[in-house]
Amino acid sequence: MEEGSEMRGKYVADISSIREAQERIKSFIHKTPVLSSETLNAVAGRRLFFKCEFFQKGGAFKFRGACNAVLSLDNDQAAKGVVTHSRFYLTSVIWSEATMQSRESVASKVLQETGAVLVHPYNDGRIISGQGTISLELLEQAPEIDTLIVPISGGGLISGVALAAKSINPAIRVFAAEPSGANDAAQSKEAGRIITLPETNTIADGLRAFLGDLTWPIVRDLVDDVITVEDKEIIEAMKLCYEILKVAVEPSGAIGLAAVLSDNFKKIPVWKNCNNIGIVLSGGNVDLGKLWDSFKQ
Amino acid sequence: MEEGSEMRGKYVADISSIREAQERIKSFIHKTPVLSSETLNAVAGRRLFFKCEFFQKGGAFKFRGACNAVLSLDNDQAAKGVVTHSRFYLTSVIWSEATMQSRESVASKVLQETGAVLVHPYNDGRIISGQGTISLELLEQAPEIDTLIVPISGGGLISGVALAAKSINPAIRVFAAEPSGANDAAQSKEAGRIITLPETNTIADGLRAFLGDLTWPIVRDLVDDVITVEDKEIIEAMKLCYEILKVAVEPSGAIGLAAVLSDNFKKIPVWKNCNNIGIVLSGGNVDLGKLWDSFKQ
Repeated sequence: MEEGSEMRGKYVADISSIREAQERIKSFIHKTPVLSSETLNAVAGRRLFFKCEFFQKGGAFKFRGACNAVLSLDNDQAAKGVVTHSRFYLTSVIWSEATMQSRESVASKVLQETGAVLVHPYNDGRIISGQGTISLELLEQAPEIDTLIVPISGGGLISGVALAAKSINPAIRVFAAEPSGANDAAQSKEAGRIITLPETNTIADGLRAFLGDLTWPIVRDLVDDVITVEDKEIIEAMKLCYEILKVAVEPSGAIGLAAVLSDNFKKIPVWKNCNNIGIVLSGGNVDLGKLWDSFKQ
Repeated sequence: MEEGSEMRGKYVADISSIREAQERIKSFIHKTPVLSSETLNAVAGRRLFFKCEFFQKGGAFKFRGACNAVLSLDNDQAAKGVVTHSRFYLTSVIWSEATMQSRESVASKVLQETGAVLVHPYNDGRIISGQGTISLELLEQAPEIDTLIVPISGGGLISGVALAAKSINPAIRVFAAEPSGANDAAQSKEAGRIITLPETNTIADGLRAFLGDLTWPIVRDLVDDVITVEDKEIIEAMKLCYEILKVAVEPSGAIGLAAVLSDNFKKIPVWKNCNNIGIVLSGGNVDLGKLWDSFKQ
């Protein structure tokens, strides 16, 4: 059977679209390094492989999907421009309030005025395919990985990562890491449908979005479990990133490490079989003063 | 002519001892990644390749030399233990005051009491050979490098790096980066003999040692120039490391970036020919609170 063919056509992206994305974006993105630390391995009691997407251009994984989306446009579309309501360096940035509703309304307004193409920051096959290139790199860099832990917000990152990883190795487990103050993905998995929350409350401000209709089926089917963590666990993980790994990682970026060290991880029945864990450190846009303030709490 | 043979026997280390060190230590050390940033390339007006020794075990390049020294001992020596007056994780640490004199006297005392082997932290062929393995890795990772900028303190790091690099490619330029408040290497090069200072004053507390009789001949002959920088330039470089590269680098570690961005660099006649510059980010043992305090100055 062709690699991953059982997933083809079922979702908005698949291993083919992810491999195409890799070809398309490879000369524009950084192949990010994988870090490991014997100290953190000892703390976690297993081997951890940190995929350093905070080293990606723009300081986060988002550059991959954005790059794939823009390079997928035809000439007519490209001439009219691209609008999105996430933040990255590819295109002109229009500021709006931080809430999803506000961002979407600003984006619609710009669309109407300019005829530009809207690229949703996660609920889009081109975006998901771009983020999936992380797995292609990571499983080549550390083929022994048996488990992946990935931050979840709108689901674009984890959808791409899970689609690619499970196509390459269907035995790989994929866990989402989510703040308890924005645990819509955990609730959605529990309910079997998309749950949105009236409000969210977490230091991880990158993880406040809700699942979309295109990411949800992938998260529902391919994400094995959701590990929720408290903000204080996220802060502790940021500290470990700084002090042990020597890197600047934002709260949303550090949540995977928080998850693997959390008590909730140990509630997952198969946790003892997770011996080689890939953790996506997704972004590094953290202000030093805020980092220091959070450490003093 | 055999690679690097013209240097053999002249100094306490050479390309052979460095290649032997690499074989000896390779399963114990991290092969550290090389980072690059288009933003910093644009700021510097040339391509920069950052060799990330702050990711090394123990948080600094020193682990390489220490590892080589310990693995070079015979069984009798190893049984008696190793004493050094630098800090690394390999052996038991005896604390002393921060001055070189105090550290050396504590080391002598321990030696007398235990019969242990003294390994000087830089004035030692095994240490220099271990540090030289950085060049073997870096020139394989970025063969286009035409210039290296390396922090200088006692000279162990730059001696190993220069010996290996110039054996592989004699056209490579090697510049030392030194704080103006501890500019003994610049003064030594100027005077043609080892100069020590009555006191040093710099935020880069890892760069206060003076050249030794074994490192001096290598620094004298193979270091093309010394670039001195002010503490404020070092702090600015730490900021750039944090904000752009997303990494935690101590003042001594960031001085190479400070040097390449400094006005003093432009006083070197060949500076315009330095297009692909390898910079050794030597260590990352920086307390977050201190980092933040220095940013506020």
